[in-house]
Formats: sequence, C-alpha cells, structure tokens
Amino acid sequence: MAVFVLVHGAWHDGTGWLETARHLEARGHRAFAPTIAGHGKGADKNVTHAQCTQSIVDCVAAHSLSDFVLVGHSFGGTIISKVAEAIPGKIRRLVFANGFVLRDGHSLLDEVPPYTAAAFEEIAKQSGGVSMLLPFPVWRETFVNDADLETAQRLYASLSPTPLQPCRDRLDLKKFYALETPRSYINCTEDIALPPGEFGWHPRMSGRLGLYRLVQMPGSHEVMHTNPALFAEKIIEAGRD
Amino acid sequence: MAVFVLVHGAWHDGTGWLETARHLEARGHRAFAPTIAGHGKGADKNVTHAQCTQSIVDCVAAHSLSDFVLVGHSFGGTIISKVAEAIPGKIRRLVFANGFVLRDGHSLLDEVPPYTAAAFEEIAKQSGGVSMLLPFPVWRETFVNDADLETAQRLYASLSPTPLQPCRDRLDLKKFYALETPRSYINCTEDIALPPGEFGWHPRMSGRLGLYRLVQMPGSHEVMHTNPALFAEKIIEAGRD
Amino acid sequence: MAVFVLVHGAWHDGTGWLETARHLEARGHRAFAPTIAGHGKGADKNVTHAQCTQSIVDCVAAHSLSDFVLVGHSFGGTIISKVAEAIPGKIRRLVFANGFVLRDGHSLLDEVPPYTAAAFEEIAKQSGGVSMLLPFPVWRETFVNDADLETAQRLYASLSPTPLQPCRDRLDLKKFYALETPRSYINCTEDIALPPGEFGWHPRMSGRLGLYRLVQMPGSHEVMHTNPALFAEKIIEAGRD
Repeated sequence: MAVFVLVHGAWHDGTGWLETARHLEARGHRAFAPTIAGHGKGADKNVTHAQCTQSIVDCVAAHSLSDFVLVGHSFGGTIISKVAEAIPGKIRRLVFANGFVLRDGHSLLDEVPPYTAAAFEEIAKQSGGVSMLLPFPVWRETFVNDADLETAQRLYASLSPTPLQPCRDRLDLKKFYALETPRSYINCTEDIALPPGEFGWHPRMSGRLGLYRLVQMPGSHEVMHTNPALFAEKIIEAGRD
Repeated sequence: MAVFVLVHGAWHDGTGWLETARHLEARGHRAFAPTIAGHGKGADKNVTHAQCTQSIVDCVAAHSLSDFVLVGHSFGGTIISKVAEAIPGKIRRLVFANGFVLRDGHSLLDEVPPYTAAAFEEIAKQSGGVSMLLPFPVWRETFVNDADLETAQRLYASLSPTPLQPCRDRLDLKKFYALETPRSYINCTEDIALPPGEFGWHPRMSGRLGLYRLVQMPGSHEVMHTNPALFAEKIIEAGRD
Repeated sequence: MAVFVLVHGAWHDGTGWLETARHLEARGHRAFAPTIAGHGKGADKNVTHAQCTQSIVDCVAAHSLSDFVLVGHSFGGTIISKVAEAIPGKIRRLVFANGFVLRDGHSLLDEVPPYTAAAFEEIAKQSGGVSMLLPFPVWRETFVNDADLETAQRLYASLSPTPLQPCRDRLDLKKFYALETPRSYINCTEDIALPPGEFGWHPRMSGRLGLYRLVQMPGSHEVMHTNPALFAEKIIEAGRD
C-alpha cells in the first residue's frame, strides 16, 4: 500500500484527479489531491509560487502524511520540486507526469517557447496581469488531442484561469538538485502541450532529473481525464520502489 | 457522419485506400480516394505538381463535395496543401498522415536527405527523368517494415513509377501558411520512409503546422495496407472537430 | 523455420535469453544463446574484444550453423558487428536489439556519455581495472524500469561483473560498414540505459546502419526478462526476410 499526493497543473484544481484517485484506491492505495493555493474556481488568483508550495506543504502536515509518493503534473512539477526542498524527509519518491523540471533560477515561463510566454502575458492583460485561461482551440488541439469534442468541451468548462505570478517566479532550485530522493518521469507520448523537440517534455525535462526512471504511455496532456485507469497504473509503476 | 477525401502518396494510386475507406464507411462515414493525375499504372507520367493538385480539385467539384476532411499521405501532403489554397472554403480539416509539409518555396526533393534526392534522380534516368520506382529492398525495409515478405511483395507489385516533376516543383505556399483551416498530423511511430531525426516526419513536418493536433499509432509508412482498421480509427480521431 | 543466434550484453551471459529462446522455439524456430568469453559468473574476466568475438565465431562453427539470424543486445551489438566481418557468408541478417552500432575506430566507452565512461572506470578500480558491475540503483532505474522491485532484485542477482577491456577496445569496423548483410534494429521505447537524445539508442545507433528495418516495442533494456514473449515476436519480425 502506497500513499500518493497528486499535485495538479495550471487551470486545474484537485478535483481533476478524482477518477485517477479512484483507480489508485481501487488498487489498494491512498490518494490525496489538494488544490494549490490560488487555483480553482473562485479562488483569489493573487498568489506567488512560494504560497502555492506552502499550500501543499500545509496539506501534507494537516493529514500527517509521510513516506508518500509526490506526483506533479505539468506546472505541478515546479511545485513538487519546491515541496521536496521543504520536506525532503517525508517523500519516498517524486513522480513528474509531463511535469516541468525547471533549471535552477528559471521560471516556468522561461522554459516554454517564447511565443507561448508572450501569449500568456497578452491574455493575462484582461485581468490586469493576474491570471489567464488558455483559449479553447489551443487547449482542444494540444492538451486533449485524444478526446472527442464533447469531452474536450466538458473538460474545458471545468478549468479556471490560472494565476500567472507562480509561472513568472524564478525558482532557486539548488537544494532540489542536491536531493537524492528517487524520481520518475511519466511521459505521455501524444502530449504536445509543449511542442515536441527543442521545447518538448521528454527527454528535455526528464533528462534534467539525473538518475530517473522513465515510464511512458499513450495519451495527451489530459490523460487523467481521457484514460485515468491506465494513468493510475503508470503512476503506480512510476511510484513503486 | 464525416466526408473524407483521401489523397495517396508517390507510387500509389487511389486503390491503395480501398481497405481504409471500407473501414471508414463501416463506421458511418463517406470516403473518396481519387487517383492523382500522372499516378497509377498506365498513366502518362508527364505531369506537374499544379496538374496533380488540379486533378484533386476537379474530383472534389465533380462530386460536389464540401465540408470534408482532406487527408494527405506522404507526397499527398504536398497536394492537400495546394488544394487547401485553391478551395479553402470547402475543407473542414486537413490531416497529414506522415505527409510532407513543405516549407514555402521548397520542393519535396528539397526536403528529403540529399542522398535520397540524388538516388531518385539517378533512377529516373532510365525513363529520361520522367518517373522512377523505388527499388524493392529499400521499399521493403523502410516503407513496409511491419509486413512479412509476401505482403511486401504483393504490395510492391501494386505500385507504379511515380512522376518526378511534381517532386521537383518548388511550391509557393504563402497562402497555405496563412490559412486557418484546422489541421492534424498522424505519425506512425515505425515509419522510417524518412529517416528519424534531422530529416524525420515528426516533429519536423508536424511542427510546421503551427497549431495542430497530434495523433500517433504504431506502424510503418504503409499502414493503410498493414493495419487499415486502426489507421481508419486514427483518421477519424484526427479528422473530427 | 529460422535459426537465431542470440548474443547477450554486458553483465549478462547466455542464460539471460532462456525465456526468449523458449518463445522462439515454441514458434517453430531454433535458438542458440552462447555465453561470450569472459562473461558470466566465475569466468576469467581478462579478455579482449577480439577474444569475445572469437568465442561466438567458435560457437557458430561448433554447431555448424549457417544462414542464421544474428541478434546482438546492447554490448552484443559490438560483437555481432565483428562476427559479421569474420563470417559474413553465414549470416542471413543482423538484428541489433538496443545494440551498440559503433563508429569505425570507436570503442563502446567512446559512445556512452563521458560521465558514464568515467563511472565505469572508477568502479572497475576495485578489480584492478578488469571488470565492473553496475550499482543496483542505476540498473534498477535505467535498465529494468518496467519491472517491480522483486523482479529487479532477482535479475540483478543473476548478473556478474562485465570485463571492461572489450568496452575499451577501439574497433576497426571498415569491413562491417562495407557489408551488404541485411540488418534490423529493435528499439524498446522505454529503454534509457543510454539516455534519450544526444547519446540515445535510436535514431543515433540505428541510423548508422544505412538501409535498415526498424522494429519497436514498449519496454526497458531488459525486455528479454520483462516481456520475453513480445520480444521473441519482435525478433521474428526483425529477423525475417
């Protein structure tokens, strides 16, 4: 029996893990899926990356969790890197699921294609620079390319604007890069939320982890919705000793 | 119910889509698989790329088709790019299936490895430079690597020399690159008709499409023969809204 | 009915092919899995690459084999390249299974990341530079990433230190690169024994084969243990005419 703490990505909140968590629990594991500070519908989007990290650390403390597998999806990868710095002794293994593995001193926006970073800032102007939502056509083609239109629309309706400051914050990751916590990378082979190649997930992000375990599966960036059963299986493969 | 217009690649003609079309129709769709001008056994191989394009435009007009998904396989990718320029209003979505997405001003031969372009021209000398057929050993290893020898031989017998001028013609694609027609890329993961890497299909060709949907499946360049059922399924996934 | 000669990689010996050979034979083929000189528990590890090669040539002669498919896994790829130079007329096809395809004049250690080569030499110091065993954590994460811990431990216990001189020997491969023996490359898509990208297996090693057939399957570097049934199937696909 393992304990999984599942950290969502941008635009999402903890409820996005519902089906995956159900599959994990059906296989005898425990799963927690907190919502990151500033994320989710109705949340105050004025948050920093440090506040986001702290909210996950607080959740871990509130549930007295230890010896757990910490999973970070997409933007959540930047969170679990900093959570690992804060409470390294509590984490059995880190699992980045098409997660950002930032270089020391970089922000998430430093790591996406320049035209993407510019587009994010442009859209954020509507909220005075605080938050932004990906336009549906971009999300439909590059995040849920394996879903039908109805599913894509339903999922899109569950999203909310993501706070942008945590994506701008440049992170000191020296401690993270000195940690010896075991780590895995799950790569979904049809995930083009980052464009394959120069700016791609794998092996660009995964390769920064040093010694790591690779797990792959078919699917888009939103496999927790389009194939939660297989995703849960791969999280187990990635998370075991 | 969707309408698919399937445009074949070099050495092939419309009959190569027979089984794939059958699977599409069995799932409630309509499929048209015209033969490009200058292609197929017995055809006059003295054609230009413009004539090839026109022959598909004519087929669309003859059947009064509109709001269809236009699929281009391999060389057919260069054709659908120009058809999209000619009749953009009739096309619901473009699907490149390991299809060439040429840079503006380039020919197909500009985009394959230099030794491949040279070999094509060398073989074409036998026909006064008009057409050429890939030698069986090259085709067997790099086009139908997922078939047994008997299947490979049977399929090879169905091929005919491909007109070379359409592969030499440099295409003005400025209009294509300004179109907002939705587009998808199907990549078969064992397709080495173009060598993976510097000269590969994906993400080199796919990445030129700007905002696009990626669909992948196992298989070689000839999946319409070696796995038409799954290929039809992936065409549907790639072609839907 | 085909005859397969299966050449293992570093740390392994011929017994590692047992299950794969059983699957090949269950499908009507014959399989031989010799142990390379200097390899296996209790062997004298003071061997050169030439002696390794000779031991496979000798095994072929002892069994009077001809017209066989010669499969080389990992380090075994360097062996089959030299065996092919020694007895080209006896080999129907070469199959590199995540095998090293060295550039002419290179050693295996010239082709792995510099930090890996340095680590190998460092570990080998314990045996006066003669042999070395990969530490379990490295092997578990990058060689058997698709196995559970128990399986990984059981397999690790079957390994023995690999002689290092054959990995240091720079090989004259001019004759190999002039051979016209048909060749295939099997790539396991989760094999990160070489890190994907600049130092990866595919398309870096495969692309050196010139005209070759690509066969892929899911799995780690140790698929002969973690999925021998599918591996046998892929060896058959790779080895057929």
